[in-house]
Amino acid sequence: MQGAVDETSEDLRTTFFDCLRKNGLNMEEHCLQTKDQTIHFMLLSAPWAVLCYYAEEMSMKVPLKACFDKLRARRHDKIMESGLLYESLPRRPPETFNCNFKVRKLKSFLGSENQDTFFTNTQRHQILYEILANALYGSRHQGEVGVERLLNENVFVAAYPLHDEESTNAPETPEDRLTHRQILAKYWAPWLKWYKYQPLNHIRKYFGEKIAFYFAWLGFYTTWLLPAAVIGTLIFVFGFYVASRDIPVMEVCQSGDLYSMCPVCKVCPTWNLSSICAIYKAGILFDNAGTLLFSFFMSVWSVTFLEYWKRYNATLSYRWDCLDFTEIEEPARPEFTAMAPLTIQNPITGQNEPYFPKTWRLQRIFAGSMVIMLMIAVVIIFLISVILYRIIIFLLVVKSGMIYSSASLIASITGSMISLIITLMLSKVYVSLARFLTRWELHRTQTAYEDAFTFKVFIFEFVNYYATPIYIAFIKGRFLGYPGNEITIAGYRNENCKPGGCLIELAQQMLIIMVGKQILNNIKEILFPKLEHFWHNFTLRSNEDQGHDQNKPWERDYRLIPYKGLFDEYLEMVIQFGFITIFVAACPLAPLFALLNNWIEVRLDAKKFVYEYRRPVAQRAQDIGVWTAILEAITSIAVIGNAFLVAFTSDILPRAYYQYYNNGNLTGYINFSLAQAPEVYVRKNTPCRYQGMRDSEGNLSFDFWVIMVMRLAFIILFEHVVFFLGRMIDFLVPDVPESVDIKLRRERFLAKQALAENEFLTETWQMSPQMVNK
Amino acid sequence: MQGAVDETSEDLRTTFFDCLRKNGLNMEEHCLQTKDQTIHFMLLSAPWAVLCYYAEEMSMKVPLKACFDKLRARRHDKIMESGLLYESLPRRPPETFNCNFKVRKLKSFLGSENQDTFFTNTQRHQILYEILANALYGSRHQGEVGVERLLNENVFVAAYPLHDEESTNAPETPEDRLTHRQILAKYWAPWLKWYKYQPLNHIRKYFGEKIAFYFAWLGFYTTWLLPAAVIGTLIFVFGFYVASRDIPVMEVCQSGDLYSMCPVCKVCPTWNLSSICAIYKAGILFDNAGTLLFSFFMSVWSVTFLEYWKRYNATLSYRWDCLDFTEIEEPARPEFTAMAPLTIQNPITGQNEPYFPKTWRLQRIFAGSMVIMLMIAVVIIFLISVILYRIIIFLLVVKSGMIYSSASLIASITGSMISLIITLMLSKVYVSLARFLTRWELHRTQTAYEDAFTFKVFIFEFVNYYATPIYIAFIKGRFLGYPGNEITIAGYRNENCKPGGCLIELAQQMLIIMVGKQILNNIKEILFPKLEHFWHNFTLRSNEDQGHDQNKPWERDYRLIPYKGLFDEYLEMVIQFGFITIFVAACPLAPLFALLNNWIEVRLDAKKFVYEYRRPVAQRAQDIGVWTAILEAITSIAVIGNAFLVAFTSDILPRAYYQYYNNGNLTGYINFSLAQAPEVYVRKNTPCRYQGMRDSEGNLSFDFWVIMVMRLAFIILFEHVVFFLGRMIDFLVPDVPESVDIKLRRERFLAKQALAENEFLTETWQMSPQMVNK
Repeated sequence: MQGAVDETSEDLRTTFFDCLRKNGLNMEEHCLQTKDQTIHFMLLSAPWAVLCYYAEEMSMKVPLKACFDKLRARRHDKIMESGLLYESLPRRPPETFNCNFKVRKLKSFLGSENQDTFFTNTQRHQILYEILANALYGSRHQGEVGVERLLNENVFVAAYPLHDEESTNAPETPEDRLTHRQILAKYWAPWLKWYKYQPLNHIRKYFGEKIAFYFAWLGFYTTWLLPAAVIGTLIFVFGFYVASRDIPVMEVCQSGDLYSMCPVCKVCPTWNLSSICAIYKAGILFDNAGTLLFSFFMSVWSVTFLEYWKRYNATLSYRWDCLDFTEIEEPARPEFTAMAPLTIQNPITGQNEPYFPKTWRLQRIFAGSMVIMLMIAVVIIFLISVILYRIIIFLLVVKSGMIYSSASLIASITGSMISLIITLMLSKVYVSLARFLTRWELHRTQTAYEDAFTFKVFIFEFVNYYATPIYIAFIKGRFLGYPGNEITIAGYRNENCKPGGCLIELAQQMLIIMVGKQILNNIKEILFPKLEHFWHNFTLRSNEDQGHDQNKPWERDYRLIPYKGLFDEYLEMVIQFGFITIFVAACPLAPLFALLNNWIEVRLDAKKFVYEYRRPVAQRAQDIGVWTAILEAITSIAVIGNAFLVAFTSDILPRAYYQYYNNGNLTGYINFSLAQAPEVYVRKNTPCRYQGMRDSEGNLSFDFWVIMVMRLAFIILFEHVVFFLGRMIDFLVPDVPESVDIKLRRERFLAKQALAENEFLTETWQMSPQMVNK
Repeated sequence: MQGAVDETSEDLRTTFFDCLRKNGLNMEEHCLQTKDQTIHFMLLSAPWAVLCYYAEEMSMKVPLKACFDKLRARRHDKIMESGLLYESLPRRPPETFNCNFKVRKLKSFLGSENQDTFFTNTQRHQILYEILANALYGSRHQGEVGVERLLNENVFVAAYPLHDEESTNAPETPEDRLTHRQILAKYWAPWLKWYKYQPLNHIRKYFGEKIAFYFAWLGFYTTWLLPAAVIGTLIFVFGFYVASRDIPVMEVCQSGDLYSMCPVCKVCPTWNLSSICAIYKAGILFDNAGTLLFSFFMSVWSVTFLEYWKRYNATLSYRWDCLDFTEIEEPARPEFTAMAPLTIQNPITGQNEPYFPKTWRLQRIFAGSMVIMLMIAVVIIFLISVILYRIIIFLLVVKSGMIYSSASLIASITGSMISLIITLMLSKVYVSLARFLTRWELHRTQTAYEDAFTFKVFIFEFVNYYATPIYIAFIKGRFLGYPGNEITIAGYRNENCKPGGCLIELAQQMLIIMVGKQILNNIKEILFPKLEHFWHNFTLRSNEDQGHDQNKPWERDYRLIPYKGLFDEYLEMVIQFGFITIFVAACPLAPLFALLNNWIEVRLDAKKFVYEYRRPVAQRAQDIGVWTAILEAITSIAVIGNAFLVAFTSDILPRAYYQYYNNGNLTGYINFSLAQAPEVYVRKNTPCRYQGMRDSEGNLSFDFWVIMVMRLAFIILFEHVVFFLGRMIDFLVPDVPESVDIKLRRERFLAKQALAENEFLTETWQMSPQMVNK
């Protein structure tokens, strides 16, 4: 554990180091002389007695000497650890029974003879961090406690535990002598391992449960994507077959100048329906009976996925001994102790401590929510402005004499660029706003702070990412009016979808997001750390004494970039999960692209953690935290989204209706789906057709209402069936697998028996022989 | 604890008593000589050492000597215990901190000096019952264990703990000397206590947590009914105001012979709409804008009710020290051990024990489900037969020359009677079938058995009770066709609702169920126990030696009727809960009647438990078990039911549609809602009108489809809003109240501190002074 120190606030540092020394830590100072400045490293280590004290204090789990052999032999059974996808790794964690460390019972723990190896590296880091987090550097009353706050105030530059040996140094080391980091570098990070399960136990040993749960979730999600991707691809291929035999497609393509369509803007000419033959055909690829099946499948898939993740989560937290991990009374955030206006007796510990009344916080949260809603309103206003911009630009370009399709192209490209710039700018503003608001709400614990921040940012990102698809799916091209009586926004006609329907436009949008954005994102994820690393090295190197020995591990790790938490990783994945569940009806290929991306993502993240980040302090966790709740919300939204997409955006229901009344035949569907321009309009213009179900006066026709009944009935049916299935799955699949449950109960039984033997048989009441036999 | 013994199976009894004696129980035999036979009573009691051993074995909670005073002073805070509704009772349970009994730490428990009073009555019963339940009377291998199985096989007639002193014996005893039963008799059972909260702590002390939770739930539910009843009554009164000013009502009543309605059967005459003026007006009482509001209110009410019940439940189980109560490894049911075909090593305890493979059980459950579905199909077929019967009888009576209204009356009265008889018969068949099937499924534990049985019977009772209301609300009068083209069932025209609409008929049905059935039920609940008690006494008395001393407590209790479990009590309440939530739109008075009924129910049940039942063995519980899940399911069904009722059964939406297109005016609505008989029909008959939205050819009209869109859209809107609100309430209202949470964490903190002090400070590692200060 090192602190790189700049040269201000000497007093605070001295007090802090004094306190650490009082806590029994060993300290060793090293300097790195560079041109401009000296970087001081303070190496901390804890002696055996301190380790023991804190290990008990922190309820650390350590392995017992073979106690319940039979039990443990069955404990680490091979979950997902056989076959091609599994790889036998060196230094497999031994199968032990762990329980809370007690100094008094030191003898009964495995490996307690060797004080150097009894506590693992990770455990030592946790203990040291606990000491650092609680050491005083000023008045406790003012909450001047802990290294985090000192880092915030730039008294220290960094504090980090040391990595294991550099991974690349030892290609010749025998397998079972490899450090954990080397194992991870060899068996986890390489691209060639793409088809293997991740070595989760090793990840957990080296990085702690919190990070291991992220990778476990990511791997689990990727595995579950596989069937979805396969079925999605099959459905897509099936679409080709359908499109090649579809009667309306033939009718469109062979219509010649039969259907003269009404102009799309005031100054535009009429156009022939046959001109959109290709795009109409492409639309059928995405919009056919397969879509309906697939969106049903994906709705059920997402519910089942979450249910089975809970089971896997329970299995992992059992294996990792954190099933009964309840957050130890979490310390207050340094910022909170610094800024809380009142002092109160903590109802739990009975000590005086800084306090911020709950009602005040609620007021601030309420005010904050208003600000957030305002921001979301701003986002939506910008979105509307971009739409208006596209309409106006399109008109201007058309008026200037360019042809229709390039006008549309210019409008949409410049529109997208403006939208991108605005989105990026707003995102910057919003994240800092969210951070400011969350700070202002003064949450007492780090968990509460992180949850509040996560929630705020997630809501914004949700709106930010999903606003455009939602607009295309449910609003665009829906409120157009009819020729001669167009509905306008600010005097301009509402945008229509491109010919071929809104679903194909949504599919395009999805492809851009799922492929384009993900590729960009991955490139960013590859390049940014490299650049950052390079820059970090560069600034350091340029300053640094050239003759200096560069091999000291603390200097090597200082050059790495700091670990910034898992928020961005989770956010990216959760947004992706939203796309492949909510809008899957528009693009059955989405799960495939998600799968491909995640295969890359796993190894990219692995590389980052093994090579590019400073080692994070291992944190305990028993699940993926607030993200479970967010995933559950997305799943519910997905069911609703799919129902509405199939009902309103796809062409399935109108076709079914026509087919039903036309003896199962789709011939003439195109004619049926096109309305005649109303007489009032025709009097001044040429007669033309337009998409819609209206009579000759422009009123919604009988067919429109019957189809609307079908649409709504479909939504009700779909939602009730899927939600009912979800409930059933929830009810039938226990959250904790039976095997884990039996093991837990077995352990409880053995523990009780052991206790009873100790306390009862030997010490008290003399039992009659019958009682013993019983 | 007594066993009344008949004269067979002497061997088994001897073995059993031997085993009990080996377990250290004291036994005392008494005889009651009657004319025909001798009734043997075996009085059992346990000495101190046995009590201690089992108290530790069973993890009993006993009060610690004042240990965490400050904490506990705040523990039993006054939950619902102030104001008019609260009554200060004698012998209030002391505010103590309870923890698991340990013989080793006997000295530190409160009251351990006095061995006679340290364990309460209830605890002694539990211990004795545990011994009785586990005593061998034959081969353990064949599961010949426990008094339950002996009772099943009629080796014993009864086994019960003794009640406290007879309640009526001691009117003069000073308040704080009263036994618990006397307190309950004085402060809980009397009718005059109807406005008081129940003394739950005393109930729990005397009857155990399981029964106390039933009464807590009943009381909580009754309290929550109060606002629903008040608002429901207001809405009903508001209905009078609406009905008096309703324009369609005036149109109906003043129409004279303007609307000549088509005949309701082939041989019936046409009739004037004005003849149903009164009943149409009555319909408006139940069917107005208030209904819509109220059904929304009740949907949200039911979700909120459940959420707050969970909180209250958590509070109670904290107060009663059963929050961390996890089912101790439950013993196998005697029947299971007797009938299980295989033997296997229990994975938890490692002992050999009877086994029934899970897959076999699943097969049986599957086969059982088929039988149940068949039974439900039978119920539905009977229901349809009754409907057909009504139609045919109606026609026959009309043909025989009686007038229309009395024909309808005769048909419906005889129909109801047949339906009642069939329902009762089927119910008998079904319950024994369910019992047989559940036995056949061979569940290992009593809990699993009870849950399976509860679930089966509940499903049947649900269909049984709700089939008729569902038929009236959603099917009756909906598939009629139109004059000249009636839809028929088995050659007869489908039944129509009575004039005035289906909602008023549903309201009538609800009133019959909520008032009539409940009154009958309560009379049954009052009379049956009395009769049973009388009969029990009579058979005993007639046999009995006349000169015998009747005051011995075991004989007195033997005369009481055995406690039969809470299933029927819960079932009645849950079915009622279903009525007031699912069908509330039809009858806003339902919550009022439910409230009145429950006020009676609470005291009736109290009387039964205090005076008429043998004392049940206290059972631990931490909630109301499987009923929570059933209530949750009902709540979901209620939201859907309300949405469909308002959309389809009520007249609100068609009226709103007409009003919208008629400039906010309802004038002419009656004319709008009546279709003209189609021309084909008029050619042969007189022109007439009928309820429906059809054109002159009998096809569904444009208006029909638009209104259908409104109906479906309303359902979607209603369900999404209510379910979203439900999720929000679920999310915002924590399941465990914050006050309880803080106390729990405080206790955990203190426990940890106590442990640390004991084990660390005193025994090991010498700490430096700084560490102590820290």
